[in-house]
Amino acid sequence: MKNINLCIAGLGNVGSALVDLIEKNTELVNFKADLNINILGLSAKNKNKKRIFDVSKYKWFQNPLDLLSVDGLAPDILVELIGYEKDISYELVKSAIKNKINVVTGNKAMLAKYGQELFKIAEENKVLLLFEAAVAGGIPVIKTLKNIIFSNKIKKISGILNGTTNYILTTMELENKSFGDVLNDAKQKGFTSDHESELDIGGYDAAHKLTLLTSLAYSAQIDFNLNQIEGIYNITIEDINFVKKLGYKIKLISECSLIENKIYASTKPKLIPINSPMANANGALNAINIETDHLESLYLEGEGAGGPPTASSVFSDILEISSKSLTKSLGFSYSKLIKFEKFNSSNLESKYFLRVRVKDQPGVLSKITSYFNDNNISIEKILQIPDNDSKSMPIVITTHKIKSSELLSSVKKIADLEFILDKISLIPIEY
Amino acid sequence: MKNINLCIAGLGNVGSALVDLIEKNTELVNFKADLNINILGLSAKNKNKKRIFDVSKYKWFQNPLDLLSVDGLAPDILVELIGYEKDISYELVKSAIKNKINVVTGNKAMLAKYGQELFKIAEENKVLLLFEAAVAGGIPVIKTLKNIIFSNKIKKISGILNGTTNYILTTMELENKSFGDVLNDAKQKGFTSDHESELDIGGYDAAHKLTLLTSLAYSAQIDFNLNQIEGIYNITIEDINFVKKLGYKIKLISECSLIENKIYASTKPKLIPINSPMANANGALNAINIETDHLESLYLEGEGAGGPPTASSVFSDILEISSKSLTKSLGFSYSKLIKFEKFNSSNLESKYFLRVRVKDQPGVLSKITSYFNDNNISIEKILQIPDNDSKSMPIVITTHKIKSSELLSSVKKIADLEFILDKISLIPIEY
Repeated sequence: MKNINLCIAGLGNVGSALVDLIEKNTELVNFKADLNINILGLSAKNKNKKRIFDVSKYKWFQNPLDLLSVDGLAPDILVELIGYEKDISYELVKSAIKNKINVVTGNKAMLAKYGQELFKIAEENKVLLLFEAAVAGGIPVIKTLKNIIFSNKIKKISGILNGTTNYILTTMELENKSFGDVLNDAKQKGFTSDHESELDIGGYDAAHKLTLLTSLAYSAQIDFNLNQIEGIYNITIEDINFVKKLGYKIKLISECSLIENKIYASTKPKLIPINSPMANANGALNAINIETDHLESLYLEGEGAGGPPTASSVFSDILEISSKSLTKSLGFSYSKLIKFEKFNSSNLESKYFLRVRVKDQPGVLSKITSYFNDNNISIEKILQIPDNDSKSMPIVITTHKIKSSELLSSVKKIADLEFILDKISLIPIEY
Repeated sequence: MKNINLCIAGLGNVGSALVDLIEKNTELVNFKADLNINILGLSAKNKNKKRIFDVSKYKWFQNPLDLLSVDGLAPDILVELIGYEKDISYELVKSAIKNKINVVTGNKAMLAKYGQELFKIAEENKVLLLFEAAVAGGIPVIKTLKNIIFSNKIKKISGILNGTTNYILTTMELENKSFGDVLNDAKQKGFTSDHESELDIGGYDAAHKLTLLTSLAYSAQIDFNLNQIEGIYNITIEDINFVKKLGYKIKLISECSLIENKIYASTKPKLIPINSPMANANGALNAINIETDHLESLYLEGEGAGGPPTASSVFSDILEISSKSLTKSLGFSYSKLIKFEKFNSSNLESKYFLRVRVKDQPGVLSKITSYFNDNNISIEKILQIPDNDSKSMPIVITTHKIKSSELLSSVKKIADLEFILDKISLIPIEY
């Protein structure tokens, strides 16, 4: 039986579920892998918080840095689940790998910002810094990219990488509620906090995760600034209802590809055809679609957050380290990371969905269509929808493919027309 | 740069796509993995068949057994893609592992029948026998089970594991064609042969694959006889159209679970709710859903067959061997494989869909309902559907949960009633 000594820093949902997993599935892991997982020590902010396991069975350290040497013994693996972007998370991980201790983390914010440095230090010290839990919870997308479709040329990765925003969009649709109402519900139920929801709703959490996928897919230097980010703040229940009539759903889509040898990494709301699997990944689910030179589509869907699924991903990294694979943390050496430029997405062509509220007066529809026509924007569909409000009505337009820069400059001008009321909703369409 | 010497036996779609992948993505693999793949020799039945790569660039051996020593040099890995259940495939793989040569194969039929013996020999000779390509083409379900969710207790695996049957069922629905017509089309287009289609349509190919998944999930001895198999021969276009009205699709579902510590491994047509992702995995797609103690659902969908996706899976095994992981072929030692009993599925409860054609005469519906009532079969829905045929009409019934043994004995009696014409369609419902 091989012994693996573990220390765990951070005992929120995921950390606690990990201890629970190790306790409950000891026999299975012993039996199948001849592996004995021994928890040397734990650390978290508050020892006395109610948890799903009995803290008193383990050695407790108030300072997580003390986990690097428990009674003089360094753990084989330090598990970092504190989750700060920098501060103690960064300090702890850096100290661990400098002391030749393998690290498993679920910390996407830290890796998206400091991964470039941390993976270098890990490799120089011949230890692994693994992060399956950092992207899409229980979905094994990191190992799929680095250990499985390694030999493929990745055309595109796209996905729903943030459960909270997906839950909000789904709930708005199902319960016909406004963005604000659903968000408040979610906060009251404890699903998200003010700080978290800012990262979630602003698209930053998804962009952190996309940063890591982009590096794995294109061996791109880990650079959060490559991301183009738009949150879901502006999505209204009207948008959700209209796009449904057109056969779409609105999802916060993170996608990356290499265009003209530059990185296109975008997180923004998109219209997804209603019959595609990703349109039906509802609630807190995450989903990822990978297109390569050898796979038309590989689609993975599952729980993107939560204790048990994410703990399962943490454990898969523990297993990877235990099996002493020669695989590098990223599947390849940090020294292979390429410095790419950011692709200017205003050159990107897409179909678009527009919703405008106009004065209910004769000839408005033809004014808009001729305006679009004059500005070389080709309309695919136009819907004029009667409303309870007698003075104004919404008009919904879908365009054919157009460069976003061209569309945006026209839309700016439309916004100034006298019969246009309110802000114009503008969402690209996945086709 | 690390050199990996490879020999490939079998150059159909997958074998040819593998050579193509190695040729086209050499640079990528060199760059990222510092790995150089060197093809020592090839073998296939017919050297002169038109292929997507130039055979003349490689050493050719008419007898695949000669690949085990090319000019005195044994390859690091032998790739077996001939695909016979026994004969030369078995002989070649067995000789290779006995000679301490790692093997990568896509041969599910061989492993489902002789895996128990072959994995033992591989382990005794300290080599790997890997088989990602044997199940679900480009979907990495084998590595997901053995390297990733290893620490999870698997509750249930269910999936669409055969592309041909899925293509047939989808095409029947989309083109409103009979089973026979679609099958003949598929044969004429070269999608399947007489021999292949028998394995596909009879459910055997899917059951071969399920055998391997069952062993990985429950460390069950590899025993094809644990399978309960029913093909799609009896699915009619009427069934497909009726179940659609009820909100379902018919799919050939392979599923395994441990019930009362016995193996339930079943491949048979089932009704799947139309809004579930698996119901929308159409055409030749494969899909797999895994439920564990830590994952409510992990859903994988992608191309289940075809050269490029399957070659990508073969390559993932080559990478696993090259990284000198300590992982065993199955993720655990063959010696841990447990001999399970087969669960008697007549004790299994399910909802059912029944379609009967009855004489169009007064009182038939009430006769049937009272007959079901008398036999303690609880009806959920009953649909009487007018037909062009004036003398007979179809009746569709869905039941509440009932043991299949009880339902079957009643259905046998119903079949003898004087107003029942034709055979009764009977398909379990996934809920």
